Amino acid sequence: MTVSHKINRAEIISIGDELLIGQVVNSNAAWMGEQLFLNGISLHWITTVGDTEEAIHQALHNALDRSQFIFLTGGLGPTSDDITKTALCSFFDVPLVFNQQAYDQIVALFSRRGFPLTERNRLQAMLPSNCTTIANQNGTASGMWFEYQDSIIVSMPGVPFEMKPMFEKQLLPTIKSRFNVSSYLFKTVMTTGVGESFLADRIREWEQQLPSNFRLAYLPQPGIVRLRIGGQDSDKEKVRHELNNLVAGLQQLIPEFIYGYDNQSLEEVVSSLLSRQGKTVATAESCTGGYIAHLLTSIVGSSTYFKGSVVAYANEIKTALLGVPQIMLLQYGAVSQQVAEAMAIGLRKRFETDFAVAVTGIAGPDGGTAGKPVGTVWIAVADKTGVQSSIFHLGDLRMVNIRRAALAALNMLRLELVKKD
Amino acid sequence: MTVSHKINRAEIISIGDELLIGQVVNSNAAWMGEQLFLNGISLHWITTVGDTEEAIHQALHNALDRSQFIFLTGGLGPTSDDITKTALCSFFDVPLVFNQQAYDQIVALFSRRGFPLTERNRLQAMLPSNCTTIANQNGTASGMWFEYQDSIIVSMPGVPFEMKPMFEKQLLPTIKSRFNVSSYLFKTVMTTGVGESFLADRIREWEQQLPSNFRLAYLPQPGIVRLRIGGQDSDKEKVRHELNNLVAGLQQLIPEFIYGYDNQSLEEVVSSLLSRQGKTVATAESCTGGYIAHLLTSIVGSSTYFKGSVVAYANEIKTALLGVPQIMLLQYGAVSQQVAEAMAIGLRKRFETDFAVAVTGIAGPDGGTAGKPVGTVWIAVADKTGVQSSIFHLGDLRMVNIRRAALAALNMLRLELVKKD
Repeated sequence: MTVSHKINRAEIISIGDELLIGQVVNSNAAWMGEQLFLNGISLHWITTVGDTEEAIHQALHNALDRSQFIFLTGGLGPTSDDITKTALCSFFDVPLVFNQQAYDQIVALFSRRGFPLTERNRLQAMLPSNCTTIANQNGTASGMWFEYQDSIIVSMPGVPFEMKPMFEKQLLPTIKSRFNVSSYLFKTVMTTGVGESFLADRIREWEQQLPSNFRLAYLPQPGIVRLRIGGQDSDKEKVRHELNNLVAGLQQLIPEFIYGYDNQSLEEVVSSLLSRQGKTVATAESCTGGYIAHLLTSIVGSSTYFKGSVVAYANEIKTALLGVPQIMLLQYGAVSQQVAEAMAIGLRKRFETDFAVAVTGIAGPDGGTAGKPVGTVWIAVADKTGVQSSIFHLGDLRMVNIRRAALAALNMLRLELVKKD
Repeated sequence: MTVSHKINRAEIISIGDELLIGQVVNSNAAWMGEQLFLNGISLHWITTVGDTEEAIHQALHNALDRSQFIFLTGGLGPTSDDITKTALCSFFDVPLVFNQQAYDQIVALFSRRGFPLTERNRLQAMLPSNCTTIANQNGTASGMWFEYQDSIIVSMPGVPFEMKPMFEKQLLPTIKSRFNVSSYLFKTVMTTGVGESFLADRIREWEQQLPSNFRLAYLPQPGIVRLRIGGQDSDKEKVRHELNNLVAGLQQLIPEFIYGYDNQSLEEVVSSLLSRQGKTVATAESCTGGYIAHLLTSIVGSSTYFKGSVVAYANEIKTALLGVPQIMLLQYGAVSQQVAEAMAIGLRKRFETDFAVAVTGIAGPDGGTAGKPVGTVWIAVADKTGVQSSIFHLGDLRMVNIRRAALAALNMLRLELVKKD
């Protein structure tokens, strides 16, 4: 029986010298914090320490006094500066022993990748004798589950793509099935094409009428604002019903800005529309430099609807591969409605796709003029009925511009697809 | 006189509910960690807690036992959820009093900005009676300096553009002039094309011979392993000399894997080589889907050497735009040495560049076969003298594959450029 003040309280101990000297930002802790929050588990403490046994022990002692769930990340690599396993052994006073289950997983990983197993890899199967293993699909460091002094202690690798699937697919389901975590229901509404303050003005009345057990959070990123609506009540069905009504109200209020829900990406939404409609697409990119193609091809199965791209950074490529007349480039400039539309039309003809998306703009920091400042972007979408185009003014930061222009282009394509859905 | 184990040890206490639920990533702590490290002060502990008095008190108690310098950020805003000042008052058992100096700074800030002062703003000048103020040039929350139980406690706002100038321009100079901080020097060696354990095997002897005042850390990311070598000594010149020798030794040992230093990206290194040599490049991408083009165009000024890309996701695009013979695709398959080389040669002809980089592979999760499993990637680099190609086996995670293939392609291009440099 866990002492009451610890119940349902979670704590993270992030281990690694690189976190203390600023070489790595602790984004793992933020990610886990959000996951825990969304799953009704209250994260109340994060400790970051270096790769020293003394500090790990002290952090564990403190955590055991106040937290039911203690998540460690980091320090499980095969090299000498990784000491989390030996620190855990001395903390629990247990030996490091060969773990057959962990070893089998490492062998399976290496055979999938076609690499030979080294002695150093084999050492990764040496684990504290009191742990239960948690499979790592993406690396050699096994996760470890300990039960100690009425707390659960879990040790995971610090590499995000190894830790995240472990946490999401194995740990959270186990914890939720074994422990009674309080019900908190959320829906995240994904918006694009609108800034945070404009959005707040548009939904002010709706927001003022939120029931007192509900909360709204604005979570802005470049080009996207997430609206997270959450409610808590002992009556789970009642909250679910109220939440659905609130989201429906929002959908009625700002349909043009809502592209999806629950952390869907815009490229996921566009991809499923294309799949469902059996349509194909290609992109012609100048200032976005291949980033839209990258977003689309990050989706599994994109080869069924994405045929390819021309990244036409140099003007002669716009002419040679997309058929943009040289005289048009001279007369209107590369960043113009005429050129954007010609790129989309030329691309669609060349690639024989249903849709063609073209982007031309000034990403910065150089290349702006008084008439066309940095951040000016023309986007065109062509289909068999013709071509649509719009101008955007996206600010003066290069990487933010590239991201915003790509999202604006995907959103224009989405709106065309939705019309026909 | 500060007790010896605390001397020169720094600790951060980050305060704010938003840090615990993943709304904000704690980039402040990483930034301060780097500043402290570069200035010879050893950050050994970071605690993140929510906006509660109990947690702030507990974190302060723990910190006073082990750290000479304690930096608090967050919770100094004018709204009711900001409680750091009252928590400090109860911790020190002192009252909150009107502080004339803080008030004068707020008045000056508002007059500079031309805004009227509200009552809420005036409350920002109420500070714990035992503090010395630290001016905030960019906001109303004054910084506070406390001396308590032979430690220095500093409380700062959490807004990065308010905290950073305060920390950099006022705190660090004060601390360095008042306390004796020891010198720490480090160098980060950037490697690619080699995994952490293989690297560790290759440099084992070099690592075993490190002087006892030096430490080595392996910092892996997909496709890149950073090696951080750091040394500490009272004689700064001696450490600098030893560090240079150690790095030179490493350069001799693994020249093929070292692409740069001190957090340079591979695309930065390739870009500066292309710029310096006045050469141009284009990419033909299948499985990387435009990601190499995106990396290159993320660099400011890339339009001088990057002409563009063909993302040839569909086979007919490989034929139509890159001139890959259809019969070759049928005979060898799209993922083959022949096709990779034909893509590079066709692209270079088409784009009239000095170099052409082509990538074709199976990103996964589908599309693998026994002979060509997911993660099989062929990369070719063509120049006027001919074409080089290599096969890679990059694992089974789609996004990691894309990243690793792009880095492998950039590294092949880099090695060609280095030959001629």
